[in-house]
Amino acid sequence: MSQPAADWRDTFIAIRSNKIFEMTVIAIIIFSALMIGASTYDIAPHWIEFIKLLDIAVTLFFLAELLIRMAAEKRLRDFFKQGWNIFDFFIVSASLIPIDESQMVLLARLLRIFRVLRLVSMIPELRILMNALLLAIPRMGYVVLLMFIIFYIYAALGSFMFEAINGVLWGDISIAMLTLFRVATFEDWTDVMYETMVVYPFSWIYYLTFIFLTAFVFLNMMIGVVLDVMQSEHEKYNREQGEGEAGEVHWLKENAIEMEQRFERMEEMLKELTDRGKPPPLNKETTKTDRKGLRES
Amino acid sequence: MSQPAADWRDTFIAIRSNKIFEMTVIAIIIFSALMIGASTYDIAPHWIEFIKLLDIAVTLFFLAELLIRMAAEKRLRDFFKQGWNIFDFFIVSASLIPIDESQMVLLARLLRIFRVLRLVSMIPELRILMNALLLAIPRMGYVVLLMFIIFYIYAALGSFMFEAINGVLWGDISIAMLTLFRVATFEDWTDVMYETMVVYPFSWIYYLTFIFLTAFVFLNMMIGVVLDVMQSEHEKYNREQGEGEAGEVHWLKENAIEMEQRFERMEEMLKELTDRGKPPPLNKETTKTDRKGLRES
Amino acid sequence: MSQPAADWRDTFIAIRSNKIFEMTVIAIIIFSALMIGASTYDIAPHWIEFIKLLDIAVTLFFLAELLIRMAAEKRLRDFFKQGWNIFDFFIVSASLIPIDESQMVLLARLLRIFRVLRLVSMIPELRILMNALLLAIPRMGYVVLLMFIIFYIYAALGSFMFEAINGVLWGDISIAMLTLFRVATFEDWTDVMYETMVVYPFSWIYYLTFIFLTAFVFLNMMIGVVLDVMQSEHEKYNREQGEGEAGEVHWLKENAIEMEQRFERMEEMLKELTDRGKPPPLNKETTKTDRKGLRES
Amino acid sequence: MSQPAADWRDTFIAIRSNKIFEMTVIAIIIFSALMIGASTYDIAPHWIEFIKLLDIAVTLFFLAELLIRMAAEKRLRDFFKQGWNIFDFFIVSASLIPIDESQMVLLARLLRIFRVLRLVSMIPELRILMNALLLAIPRMGYVVLLMFIIFYIYAALGSFMFEAINGVLWGDISIAMLTLFRVATFEDWTDVMYETMVVYPFSWIYYLTFIFLTAFVFLNMMIGVVLDVMQSEHEKYNREQGEGEAGEVHWLKENAIEMEQRFERMEEMLKELTDRGKPPPLNKETTKTDRKGLRES
Repeated sequence: MSQPAADWRDTFIAIRSNKIFEMTVIAIIIFSALMIGASTYDIAPHWIEFIKLLDIAVTLFFLAELLIRMAAEKRLRDFFKQGWNIFDFFIVSASLIPIDESQMVLLARLLRIFRVLRLVSMIPELRILMNALLLAIPRMGYVVLLMFIIFYIYAALGSFMFEAINGVLWGDISIAMLTLFRVATFEDWTDVMYETMVVYPFSWIYYLTFIFLTAFVFLNMMIGVVLDVMQSEHEKYNREQGEGEAGEVHWLKENAIEMEQRFERMEEMLKELTDRGKPPPLNKETTKTDRKGLRES
Repeated sequence: MSQPAADWRDTFIAIRSNKIFEMTVIAIIIFSALMIGASTYDIAPHWIEFIKLLDIAVTLFFLAELLIRMAAEKRLRDFFKQGWNIFDFFIVSASLIPIDESQMVLLARLLRIFRVLRLVSMIPELRILMNALLLAIPRMGYVVLLMFIIFYIYAALGSFMFEAINGVLWGDISIAMLTLFRVATFEDWTDVMYETMVVYPFSWIYYLTFIFLTAFVFLNMMIGVVLDVMQSEHEKYNREQGEGEAGEVHWLKENAIEMEQRFERMEEMLKELTDRGKPPPLNKETTKTDRKGLRES
Repeated sequence: MSQPAADWRDTFIAIRSNKIFEMTVIAIIIFSALMIGASTYDIAPHWIEFIKLLDIAVTLFFLAELLIRMAAEKRLRDFFKQGWNIFDFFIVSASLIPIDESQMVLLARLLRIFRVLRLVSMIPELRILMNALLLAIPRMGYVVLLMFIIFYIYAALGSFMFEAINGVLWGDISIAMLTLFRVATFEDWTDVMYETMVVYPFSWIYYLTFIFLTAFVFLNMMIGVVLDVMQSEHEKYNREQGEGEAGEVHWLKENAIEMEQRFERMEEMLKELTDRGKPPPLNKETTKTDRKGLRES
Repeated sequence: MSQPAADWRDTFIAIRSNKIFEMTVIAIIIFSALMIGASTYDIAPHWIEFIKLLDIAVTLFFLAELLIRMAAEKRLRDFFKQGWNIFDFFIVSASLIPIDESQMVLLARLLRIFRVLRLVSMIPELRILMNALLLAIPRMGYVVLLMFIIFYIYAALGSFMFEAINGVLWGDISIAMLTLFRVATFEDWTDVMYETMVVYPFSWIYYLTFIFLTAFVFLNMMIGVVLDVMQSEHEKYNREQGEGEAGEVHWLKENAIEMEQRFERMEEMLKELTDRGKPPPLNKETTKTDRKGLRES
């Protein structure tokens, strides 16, 4: 690598980690968000022109910021290894494509709105929160599938039975699922029920079992998430401090087993000593006799 | 058992545990679910005929699959020992009964819809989830009974007091219970209340106490479920890893008691040794005197 | 106490604890509940007469049951020591008072409805559940007070500001509190808000802060209850099994301190032994000299 | 400090900590709250005059109470060190400013209503609860920010797309956010949806994703609060009792390491003793030879 390039990279790294630079980027994102908000109000035409100019400035600033962050990486593909960078790259590069506003005005606006999401990629706390939310999704996968099956069965049933009563609510299976989602959120669900109860007086069974089932499955999902979070917190806690206790107790047991062997050895030795000590009085006897013999001699 | 029969069974077991076979069954179930969904839309008559043919094909496939799974068992009653197998058998055999569509169209459709539930019996994760839901039911039994008693008492009271005001909502005890369920879901409950407050200005007490009581009991039920799940998780955790700690601590105590006895023995021996050591100086004295005597002599 | 009286009491105790008797009482309570439910329907006059007769029979049966349970007690005041007995006594004795149905029909009906609550006093599991609910009340007391203060302040504010806009919803502080309860349950709260926003465009601040505050305090209450239950479960668990671990660890520490003293004594003795052992070679020297002297002599 | 001043202060401290004085203050606060409530009803003019007089009396009482509490402090700035005192000071002093009721009637009433909040500062249990609520706010900060970003993006999108359909609900970004809050509380959200679905048949995706996202983030917030409270409870528990167990286990480990060194020393000594013991038989041999030599001599 050539020296000047490396120097340049150091400069870019310095800019990227600069607190003021970070704050400026966040401020520009918020500013662009406010601009989007402002453009929803009825404003004078010359202000619209001004906003368009500002928008181009913001786009150019984001481009510059992205290029600085790209240049600060040793290799370009390091930049694309982080999910949030890819997101930033997509948002910024998409807003560079010249879109004919008159035709695809919605898409152009959508892109500008999604820029606000860059706040999440810029503020670390929000990034952590977002990652936590994304991590909770797999745990919920099968519960959502089960919920979908319940919705599908009830929607098929509802569509067959109630289509003749109210085609707007029960016309086909997709409309029926939307109606059931409405019932699950308790939104004017009695109006839906009373209407069908005129023809099928026992159709309240349909609604009540559905409400109980969805509430039950949803409750299960909620508890699942709580338990998941708690378990991961518990493990983290154990790893940080608590491993202390469990680990120390384990150490104590291992240590106690080792010590037991030592004690066995010690007791063995003590026994030997005590057993050995006993003969001496007998020895003394012989000494006395010896001495007697000595005296006698 | 004849050899060829056993050979056949091995083939069926191989088919049953084949991943591709399992995937095919799941795909067919999903396909039959989509067919049910499609038939809720307004479709051309020749498509309806085509769907009817497909439906017969699906029924035959399910029959074949069921027979394979039955044949794979050593004894037929082993097959019926699992709840999900009984469920599958019922669903498949019921769809074989020729039902005159013009008369019992609803029942025929219901059977076809319930086939979607076979997804739960085919996907192990959903089966686990379903079993967990079924296990939570007994814990909730008495809470639901208590809730029913509260509903019954309030419904009887409401029916006596408010029937004259609005017979549609408070006509008899079952209608009143439905109205109270609506109040419990906060669905247009103020409309119900304002109507009765015209005649009984203090009837808001009736609604507010009811809302508090049901919310309270429901809260209790939710907490009960959470605690139940947590307790079982805790026990499982203890059984798997944590028994470690509690078990090791218990082992340490038992071990400490044993060791204490050993130490008592060791100290006893040490005392004996030290006590035995002490006389020698006295012995030495007598030896010295002896020696003195020897010298004197 | 006279012998026959004691004999009678034993009989009554036997009846009271008889499973069949208990089941009969529960069945009669459920039957009387169904009768109350039946009387909310439009029924033929001769059936009403029949129900009235049945009602008298039920009242007499409850009286007999109460007298048996009273007679089974050693002293009458033992009977009134249990809260549920007082409840039963009140319900049964009140239904004996001859009430002129034409005048106080509501009170007479209320008493009959409250009989259903006797189910709670008869089924032990429901009694436990009810006691748990009653125990949770004190914990919630101050939270409910805080919630009431929030409601009161917002109601006073709302009544002052919005009375001119809609007297039906904000007429005085009590009506305003009811309206706020409606807002807290999200029941058509936007209709209430849009109406006031015509006059005070910023009144959405009033509603949103109120919703956030009440949701926040309610959340706190719910968490409080969950934690309370968990803590008591944890303590119970500790008392039953876990005291095991914490207690055993404590025992181990106490034991370790005791043992340390023993080890100090043992080491002391060992040191003494080793120190004593060292002189002997010196002793042997003197013996040798002695012997030398002996030889010399 | 002069002696009489100190004497006066002791008197004020005695008054301040007097239970009866505290109860009187609480009673006066409740009384003033009831007065505010009463003034929302239509009452006779002479009662209004009476209430005005009572209001002046209450204001003077609060002033006296505040002065007593200030005088009871050693230094005036000690008084202002507690947040609740500053709150009390502001409320009382503000109600002393003569406000022309005809012009700023709302502000005068607001000040009188906020007096009710003094209940929170007077009752310790409510103060604890309020502090707990304030402590939970920082934890929620970033979640609320994330929720705001979601609302902002959806509101911008909704305003661009649906403004032409219904300007009242989607006119500009702030109105759209209010509409989305309404959707998040499930308040007649289907009416909002059905209206836009006429033009954009797939706009249900907009509503359903929004409901899922907000429910998801809200769930996360709730779990966050529960975990936060539990963690702090756990830490408190550990500090109070449980430090016991973890601390004792740690002590046991430290102690075991120390003891091991002692045991090593003890074993060493024992080995020395046993080793030393072994030569003696050899010594005895030499003694015997000596003796033999003695005898021979």
